[in-house]
Amino acid sequence: MATNNDDTTVVVGGDAAGLSAASKLKRDAPEQEVIVFERGEWVSYGACGLPYYVKGDIDRLDDLVVNDAETFREERDIDLRTGHEVVEIDVDERTVVVEADDGKFEQSYDNLVIATGARALVPPIDGADLDGLFTLQTMDAGGDIRKAVEHGIEGADEVIEPERVGIVGGGYVGVELAEAFHERGLEVHLFEMLPHVLNPFGESTARVVEEHLREHDVDLSLGTRVEAFNGEHGRVRSIETPEETVPVDLAILGVGVEPRVELAEQAGIETGPTGAIATDQYGETNVQDVYAAGDCAEATHTVTGAPDYVPLALTANRHGRAVGATIAGDPTPTGPIAGTAALKAFDLEAARTGIVDPERAEDVGFDPVSKTLELPSRAHYYPGSEEITVTLVADETTGRVLGASMVGREGVAQRINSVATALHTGVTVDELERFDFAYAPPFSPTWDPVLTAAKVLNGTIDSR
Amino acid sequence: MATNNDDTTVVVGGDAAGLSAASKLKRDAPEQEVIVFERGEWVSYGACGLPYYVKGDIDRLDDLVVNDAETFREERDIDLRTGHEVVEIDVDERTVVVEADDGKFEQSYDNLVIATGARALVPPIDGADLDGLFTLQTMDAGGDIRKAVEHGIEGADEVIEPERVGIVGGGYVGVELAEAFHERGLEVHLFEMLPHVLNPFGESTARVVEEHLREHDVDLSLGTRVEAFNGEHGRVRSIETPEETVPVDLAILGVGVEPRVELAEQAGIETGPTGAIATDQYGETNVQDVYAAGDCAEATHTVTGAPDYVPLALTANRHGRAVGATIAGDPTPTGPIAGTAALKAFDLEAARTGIVDPERAEDVGFDPVSKTLELPSRAHYYPGSEEITVTLVADETTGRVLGASMVGREGVAQRINSVATALHTGVTVDELERFDFAYAPPFSPTWDPVLTAAKVLNGTIDSR
Repeated sequence: MATNNDDTTVVVGGDAAGLSAASKLKRDAPEQEVIVFERGEWVSYGACGLPYYVKGDIDRLDDLVVNDAETFREERDIDLRTGHEVVEIDVDERTVVVEADDGKFEQSYDNLVIATGARALVPPIDGADLDGLFTLQTMDAGGDIRKAVEHGIEGADEVIEPERVGIVGGGYVGVELAEAFHERGLEVHLFEMLPHVLNPFGESTARVVEEHLREHDVDLSLGTRVEAFNGEHGRVRSIETPEETVPVDLAILGVGVEPRVELAEQAGIETGPTGAIATDQYGETNVQDVYAAGDCAEATHTVTGAPDYVPLALTANRHGRAVGATIAGDPTPTGPIAGTAALKAFDLEAARTGIVDPERAEDVGFDPVSKTLELPSRAHYYPGSEEITVTLVADETTGRVLGASMVGREGVAQRINSVATALHTGVTVDELERFDFAYAPPFSPTWDPVLTAAKVLNGTIDSR
Repeated sequence: MATNNDDTTVVVGGDAAGLSAASKLKRDAPEQEVIVFERGEWVSYGACGLPYYVKGDIDRLDDLVVNDAETFREERDIDLRTGHEVVEIDVDERTVVVEADDGKFEQSYDNLVIATGARALVPPIDGADLDGLFTLQTMDAGGDIRKAVEHGIEGADEVIEPERVGIVGGGYVGVELAEAFHERGLEVHLFEMLPHVLNPFGESTARVVEEHLREHDVDLSLGTRVEAFNGEHGRVRSIETPEETVPVDLAILGVGVEPRVELAEQAGIETGPTGAIATDQYGETNVQDVYAAGDCAEATHTVTGAPDYVPLALTANRHGRAVGATIAGDPTPTGPIAGTAALKAFDLEAARTGIVDPERAEDVGFDPVSKTLELPSRAHYYPGSEEITVTLVADETTGRVLGASMVGREGVAQRINSVATALHTGVTVDELERFDFAYAPPFSPTWDPVLTAAKVLNGTIDSR
């Protein structure tokens, strides 16, 4: 990690991880040259906001942009080149080959940051290439979906105004888009292959969300494999499952993402057990001076200590920033993840952290014990109290807290962070039960739901 | 802590701490006899709800009762005697003297739990005994204040319908009652001797609350010592300060509480440096088999490791419960406190934990450094984002997080608990900066305000 004033760093990818790395590096070592190649035109955007753009809560796609290209170029002195795709890396020669409108060229580097992100998975389903069928991974896709909702889908002979949408995949994107389309007045049918939506959140949270989705007229087909998209004149018209054929005017494929690792693999940069690029604690790959950060890279899970792949925005920002600091000469650990996440589903907040699935906990050597409780969000006498369903998971042998999932109409999305903090510090349920949390009648019962869950789970462990 | 099936435990005081101890003891050791003496008639009530009863959000005083006396007697087999005041303890003879309507009697005990609570401080101000002047410490006081607001204050010749209320003391009760009275249509004037309201929350939070109070037409006299309550016909009519005489029809004294320790002191049970009853980690006093819990007792501060006095409901419940478990034969630490608290002030949430005051931090041997930041509650593009003012305090030498205070219109009261967890586990700002918190556009920016505060404060420390 030696650093010199005349070093050149090349960053591949101009979104959260890449531009966090570039910005931090330029701030800490302004004399170094930083070149960012981004193959698309959008940079530094909040992809997590796309469902709300589709919904109409956000007016313009531009609103999702955190900083525009000019800011990076003018204010941060970063050589940010959009429309430039890195197509080859030579780690021995320390060069990359870049393709742009005006041809190919070679660029040398001293340090390389790979921030190629992830792509939406497209499973091998018949008809997945029909018009009117979208994934939601890029800004342009978000624009296309909203255009389809507002202006219809153009076909050979007519414009179809969509009235029915089929969403394949009940993860974050699927659930958030279900809300967005419902608010847009569309009939929504959601298909999930697994028995429940929101697999990382566990069954207790999923059941509450599912009931809530149904209350908002979202048709749910759970445990259902989509076998084909059927089309007419090249446009999607129905979704076929073993049980039924559901007519749709518009379809979304939201079955997950995979890391973009081909460029790295071709250069001999290793991927780890998850399939994403493997790094050390500073984000450095198996090749010296080549770093990876964001949705293309692995991270270390704070509970298991093992590599994991949870492509989320905070990790991309943070790991990019740490890599920037490290290249600038201050070795900075990227930090472990806990898989903490939150989600809005109509009037519900759902959140999770750590290991929620007992099978997963067993796989990594724990002896999991868990409790699911329905607890009030406010003092019993204070108006407007809502029920929060809390699941807390611990290791029975050590008492260590392993994870949690929660769902309710209020007080969930921030509450999960106290458990995330507990995971990072390796506390036991016995300790967590005794932590001093805030109490005020409008905001929690005397015993915060997290404390009550810890108390009850601790009692379960004690009595065995 | 030896325990026997035929032990008798006497509990002095029938609110949170006393009845938590009694309930836990009876659950874990049902064969033991548990007698609770409560000098009043109310038991197990949520005093924190009294401002909302005054406000009218809660219909009946009874609604604040968590469990009524019959529940404790019938369902939990606790010999709960209201209208019974313990007036003397003899720790050598292991007896207490009890006064009731039908006379005095002596009761022997094997274990004793002192849960005598706290009383509202009444400073030596002229006229503090006038009619129409109240403290808000008991259920009856809450009833009297609401009656005064709804039905007026009876005097010698006429009933005064209160239009103007003066609140002396800008702590929790003062600020919560300011909201309550304002919502009742009264003109509110709040007097605080210190330069700012909500002293434990620190200046940055206090200033935001003060501005908000003024927006709701609360007159604030800060740094103002009340010199006298002036009366007519025995009723309070004005409040006098060095600067002015403010006419009022109703006055509240909310300048804090003090632990009720006289009964314990008379028996040779020691108080600590804070003036409250000193205990060990199991809540046991200097006298064997005599315990103290709740608002009459000290607790250990998790940051300083020293005794502290922060009389709040969760601590009373938790410490009472731990003492009950210990007496039942399972030695259970009461657990340290962090002074975590939350408060609603009109549309604001305020919260604090740990050591917020730099002078206090210096007094206990730290080298405090702090940052106050105004940060958004949601993603920049998501509608309805509100500003959260976050103050984070750390020790510059070690980087350890010492405390935090926050205020804003949303996302504060639960957010503080992640910092409380960090305090209990002794994390540094460098560690906190890297914790994996939840991000979803409706609930937080990519970097949660707590993480951003840690990041900025960490940067400050690094650059020194």
